[in-house]
Amino acid sequence: MNSVDSVLDAAPVADWRSYPIHVALVGVQTANDHVAVTWSDARVSPFHHQWLRDNCSCSQCVYSVTREQLFEIVDVPPELHPQRTRIDEQGQLLIDWQDGHHSRFHPGWLRAHAYDDASRAERLAQRPQSRLWGAEMSAQLAQFDYPAVMTDDHTLLQWLLAVRDIGLTQLRAVPTTEDVLPALAKRLSFIRESNFGVLFDVQSKANADSNAYTSFNLPLHTDLPTRELQPGLQFLHCLVNDATGGESVFVDGFAIAEALRQEAPELFRTLCETPVEFRNRSRTSDYHCLAPIIALDAYGMVSEIRMGNFLRSAFDVPVEQMAALYSAYRRFIAMTREPRFRVQRRLDAGQLWCFDNRRALHARTEFDPASGARHFKGCYIDRDELLSRIRVLQR
Amino acid sequence: MNSVDSVLDAAPVADWRSYPIHVALVGVQTANDHVAVTWSDARVSPFHHQWLRDNCSCSQCVYSVTREQLFEIVDVPPELHPQRTRIDEQGQLLIDWQDGHHSRFHPGWLRAHAYDDASRAERLAQRPQSRLWGAEMSAQLAQFDYPAVMTDDHTLLQWLLAVRDIGLTQLRAVPTTEDVLPALAKRLSFIRESNFGVLFDVQSKANADSNAYTSFNLPLHTDLPTRELQPGLQFLHCLVNDATGGESVFVDGFAIAEALRQEAPELFRTLCETPVEFRNRSRTSDYHCLAPIIALDAYGMVSEIRMGNFLRSAFDVPVEQMAALYSAYRRFIAMTREPRFRVQRRLDAGQLWCFDNRRALHARTEFDPASGARHFKGCYIDRDELLSRIRVLQR
Repeated sequence: MNSVDSVLDAAPVADWRSYPIHVALVGVQTANDHVAVTWSDARVSPFHHQWLRDNCSCSQCVYSVTREQLFEIVDVPPELHPQRTRIDEQGQLLIDWQDGHHSRFHPGWLRAHAYDDASRAERLAQRPQSRLWGAEMSAQLAQFDYPAVMTDDHTLLQWLLAVRDIGLTQLRAVPTTEDVLPALAKRLSFIRESNFGVLFDVQSKANADSNAYTSFNLPLHTDLPTRELQPGLQFLHCLVNDATGGESVFVDGFAIAEALRQEAPELFRTLCETPVEFRNRSRTSDYHCLAPIIALDAYGMVSEIRMGNFLRSAFDVPVEQMAALYSAYRRFIAMTREPRFRVQRRLDAGQLWCFDNRRALHARTEFDPASGARHFKGCYIDRDELLSRIRVLQR
Repeated sequence: MNSVDSVLDAAPVADWRSYPIHVALVGVQTANDHVAVTWSDARVSPFHHQWLRDNCSCSQCVYSVTREQLFEIVDVPPELHPQRTRIDEQGQLLIDWQDGHHSRFHPGWLRAHAYDDASRAERLAQRPQSRLWGAEMSAQLAQFDYPAVMTDDHTLLQWLLAVRDIGLTQLRAVPTTEDVLPALAKRLSFIRESNFGVLFDVQSKANADSNAYTSFNLPLHTDLPTRELQPGLQFLHCLVNDATGGESVFVDGFAIAEALRQEAPELFRTLCETPVEFRNRSRTSDYHCLAPIIALDAYGMVSEIRMGNFLRSAFDVPVEQMAALYSAYRRFIAMTREPRFRVQRRLDAGQLWCFDNRRALHARTEFDPASGARHFKGCYIDRDELLSRIRVLQR
């Protein structure tokens, strides 16, 4: 296999990944609307004619510079059939089409994109899994050294994987200068701006346009639940923290949601299915977003929590649903206050929180602004950028 | 009513809007878990005790500077009842709670937030409606003068409403300088950055990292379907267009989706329910997004189209769904090519397209880069910013 593999890996595919060949193509049969290939592990994968023609990666169909498709499937009739199919001496699937076009498929690529039930189940099992946490995380924080993150790609990747899978991380040995966040953001991609700026300053302000900019106790929340897409990652960098109080509190919103699903499935369903409006109004902006508090992905897994009691509009649901919504909402908020879920830590100068803002709800205990200076610098980066950076580092 | 109105409008409510009193409160009755108020037009609106306590806007419950809630509903028991309810001489609803707290509700605010069926239906009917369009739009383009948009808030609002409701607009008399887009964006809010930059240059490039940066025919698509949140607004500003070919083409994706719903409901449903992966890979980035091509909002209305044939991954659905997905996909693409839907216009220097990138699919016909210079400058702004700006201008 190895020599075949090395020849084929040099072949151009419409992609930036390589597809090692773990299993060989050993047979091919043509049926009415599909081709069924047999692999050396006896798996049989059907591929529809349309699918195969659509995924031809020849230089007429894909532009080699951008590796993006030029061909569109509607350019051929839906009943287009192969005239001849075979496996060549390199183990590739070759197809000569009725209209004279020729396609060849790298077996590693083909296996990686097979959509028989077994192949799909295999890919599903390889999806990243969230690691849920509770109060025990306080003693097991995922901590990384800022200098290593900035200079070593392996450390960078380990940190980003922790952000993806745990959703709460801390960087240490961080300089207490205001140029840290732009530099750190560049290590990932770029900052997501908001009406609060590219960077925001978490400080007690007389003319606050958010309760975040007061010294009050701030209940557990996600930032910007008022936007269609809540910011993915939040960074909070402590420049100075000499005030009494003002500890950081985190809970794993996914862990709470899963506990709610177990302990009160009806209430869980209510929070998944009832759109709630969040709004943030000021003299110069007026944001609204209508979305459920718990979002599920295509597989029924919890993928997002949207919560900010101080940014919530009056509930607006049919009369007969109101009591159930309050029961569910009260239960969720009550759970965020349970010690089993809470991590409470003081962030000191030279430390930085980076957490999944759509998962790890955060809070701040009340502090005394007269007792000393407290200044955090913050910014956001979206999940798309995190995942893209991880994929590139993993190539 | 007028004198009452003016006194009450000065009353602090946890909001930046005013709530004119069109209908007076004339009665109040307390039931087991709610209060039922009667209005002067005989409508009866129930309000749950929990809802009323939750929405108390007194200075203990809401911080007057940020107008954000300090109180959390879990801070009182779920069975909290009013001890006394009455309508005062100003027409407000007053509630004395069992625990000694007092709340008062402005009748204009209360009516605007009533959740009886009639009140909810009234609000639903007032939602902005999309105006669908086809080829006739070519002769009826929503055009606005750039200088007026920049200096006159009324023109700005008219333009933004056209972007929201029609999804395709053109600005004229635009200077052909590179500082236009940042200045125009500031008139709304701020630009959404992407891996292609804060501003991007649509030009034919030898080392293109997207088919957009070639001179090829580019089929109808939305930009960045590879991101969880596709950019809301796209701006394309023509600095120079001396090349042969390269006309802009637009279709109303909402109109096509609605036509598909009428003409082939099964295919429509397939595109609403089948997640399709889009991906954009380069040496430095690797974006994936799995989402249906047609998204519906909570009311079943088409709210988003996600399409980019050259950015699509191989379809990955169970074998028995593949043929149906190809039928639906082919039909949608075929419809984007039908003359009834297509607007084709050349954009000249000093003109600028601004369109809803999640609705108006755009394309470019092939051009001859040897025939003359062609340079468009582009940027994105999200829908949240558009809607926020409209709400502030409408206050």
